[in-house]
Amino acid sequence: MTTMYKNVAYDGKARAGVVTTAHGEIETPIFMPVGTRASVKCMWQHELEEVGAQIILGNTYHLYLRPGHELIEKVGGGLHGFMNWKKPILTDSGGYQVFSLSSMNKLSEEGVRFQSHIDGSYHMISPEKSMEIQRALGSDIVMNFDECPALPATKERLRESMELTLRWAKRCRDYELKEHQNLFGIIQGGLHFDLRTECMERLTEMNFEGYALGGLSVGEKNEEMVEFCSDFVHTMPKDKPRYLMGVGKPLDILTGIKNGLDMFDCVLPTRNARNGQFLTHHGPLNIKKERFKEDTLPPDPDCSCKVCSNYSRSYIRHLYNTGEYLAGQLISYHNLHFFLDMTKQARAHIIAGTFDEYYKTFYNNYTSNQWT
Amino acid sequence: MTTMYKNVAYDGKARAGVVTTAHGEIETPIFMPVGTRASVKCMWQHELEEVGAQIILGNTYHLYLRPGHELIEKVGGGLHGFMNWKKPILTDSGGYQVFSLSSMNKLSEEGVRFQSHIDGSYHMISPEKSMEIQRALGSDIVMNFDECPALPATKERLRESMELTLRWAKRCRDYELKEHQNLFGIIQGGLHFDLRTECMERLTEMNFEGYALGGLSVGEKNEEMVEFCSDFVHTMPKDKPRYLMGVGKPLDILTGIKNGLDMFDCVLPTRNARNGQFLTHHGPLNIKKERFKEDTLPPDPDCSCKVCSNYSRSYIRHLYNTGEYLAGQLISYHNLHFFLDMTKQARAHIIAGTFDEYYKTFYNNYTSNQWT
Ligand SMILES: [Zn+2]
Ligand SMILES: [Zn+2]
Repeated sequence: MTTMYKNVAYDGKARAGVVTTAHGEIETPIFMPVGTRASVKCMWQHELEEVGAQIILGNTYHLYLRPGHELIEKVGGGLHGFMNWKKPILTDSGGYQVFSLSSMNKLSEEGVRFQSHIDGSYHMISPEKSMEIQRALGSDIVMNFDECPALPATKERLRESMELTLRWAKRCRDYELKEHQNLFGIIQGGLHFDLRTECMERLTEMNFEGYALGGLSVGEKNEEMVEFCSDFVHTMPKDKPRYLMGVGKPLDILTGIKNGLDMFDCVLPTRNARNGQFLTHHGPLNIKKERFKEDTLPPDPDCSCKVCSNYSRSYIRHLYNTGEYLAGQLISYHNLHFFLDMTKQARAHIIAGTFDEYYKTFYNNYTSNQWT
Repeated sequence: MTTMYKNVAYDGKARAGVVTTAHGEIETPIFMPVGTRASVKCMWQHELEEVGAQIILGNTYHLYLRPGHELIEKVGGGLHGFMNWKKPILTDSGGYQVFSLSSMNKLSEEGVRFQSHIDGSYHMISPEKSMEIQRALGSDIVMNFDECPALPATKERLRESMELTLRWAKRCRDYELKEHQNLFGIIQGGLHFDLRTECMERLTEMNFEGYALGGLSVGEKNEEMVEFCSDFVHTMPKDKPRYLMGVGKPLDILTGIKNGLDMFDCVLPTRNARNGQFLTHHGPLNIKKERFKEDTLPPDPDCSCKVCSNYSRSYIRHLYNTGEYLAGQLISYHNLHFFLDMTKQARAHIIAGTFDEYYKTFYNNYTSNQWT
């Protein structure tokens, strides 16, 4: 079996590649918009293509509860057909949401018993159940079911959690997915280099199609995460995709890319949009601010997207302040365009061997914080 | 001065024409989407063009309160520039909203004093103030400021109201608008043929650029409105646009067209969208219904819009039930497409001399109510 990752170029530790799936190729590094409940909030599917999305995420926990994976498979043959998205899809395992959203979750060797955050009904998600759901969803990339320990945690607790995650990883590996599906292993271990390394090595023995870093950006200091990535990522398998889960802010992603990570996801562009925040080349811009009341400039003068080419800050501020739906639509569109343009530019600069200059320029502009 | 209306064809009382404005021509009969606060809810401006919108409405009352007409003129040179909509715009006079939305409104010969429904602040809108606001908004079609008596009302009360409306109409007529703006007179008089006729004749003496029927579809029986239109509309000036304000449901509009009306507006397509209602060729379809849970059909199998070409009832039902923003976007888009396609088809059939067949077929299909 051939690996789904093909490297195109390295520039320092940063790398450009191509990830091949049954629903098309993904040029990495790549940002993946999050479509929690089979919709990236405020965005039509063709708009996702317009802003350059090559792969999107679906959330196993949410889709299992509503509308249910059986319905999605029955109606659409899987998530692609159900939501009419023809490009690749990655689904998470449901683990993170079970621990963070549900109430009264009970952990056992078998899995996690929990109450739905919607109606309080009881459910059990085990490694096999997570695989069953993701199999029905038909995602191109399936994540194994892992435990996410609450932080801060002692090293002892992290080791226990890692051991459980590894036993669960084996059970996921043994589950038969659909032909076109690829299973990723999740490396846990907090900020402990030795735990992470052991976890990775034992996962590597099970030969996953890709490897993800879980449990980062969950409360530790930013410099700690940056330092850990700098030390660890380049030790990960070179012939497999490397995915940093749930991260994050623009500079976190760029730092991840600098250290050799390939894939990123975060709800930040769409969630912050609904709070009136544009991400721009010169830092975040909060459209609610009085200073933009009569501002005829586009949200981000350095952006060529459909929003920045057509609408002024003054207009969008009015939309936001009066609660017009269009505000969320416009800001989400720009923010996703911004993230995807950033990973696209990063890739081009890696290939050209000029990533460091790109990183520095982006960093300096972004931290100038012109709109505060 | 030439009239802005040019007739293209009559088919019975129904008529097809062209209304010329500084921002382009409008092919009538036409449905006009309502962009209350400088946005047609859930729709980008280019999407309005996609669904065939040729002219949209803005609400003087809402825009006066937020963001203010001075700001709109300063920032965008008017509403066109502010919201980046290049085609024609009609603004209402604010009268209807002052009476229906504000509290403690006090009517006098001068105008209406009222409290904002947003922050309780005090304001006065007079005929001159309404013209000042609409002048700043720079709409292509300006409506005169009229009194809207609460119904039911005695004939005596309606006559008083009509006399006031006529005195106000004169004051509006005397106000100097911008070169490109056209002022429409509003015919009041309830369902009294003699009052309406008198009102129309006295307005006609002031030579407005178009005439609107106000105070219909505000509580009277539907057959009464239909009968009134049937008797009255063909007596209106033939060389000016005829506008039926705030109406309405698909069959009401078609009946209006049948009787020779040219222009229609209503919030129904976008408001009902947010309640999960699709308007379709076979009657309204409420996407919340259990029967659509696994339905792979498009919302309206007879529709060729971007929604019906791409998304299933099952998917949209899921979006609606989980509160996803995309639901409102998709249903609004289809509903506006449906209304605009209806007036477009009506026009083609008037020109072809086959309007009656079109009307009957549409009526029979629509009232079959297949989705209840
Ligand atoms: Zn932009
Ligand atoms: Zn449609």
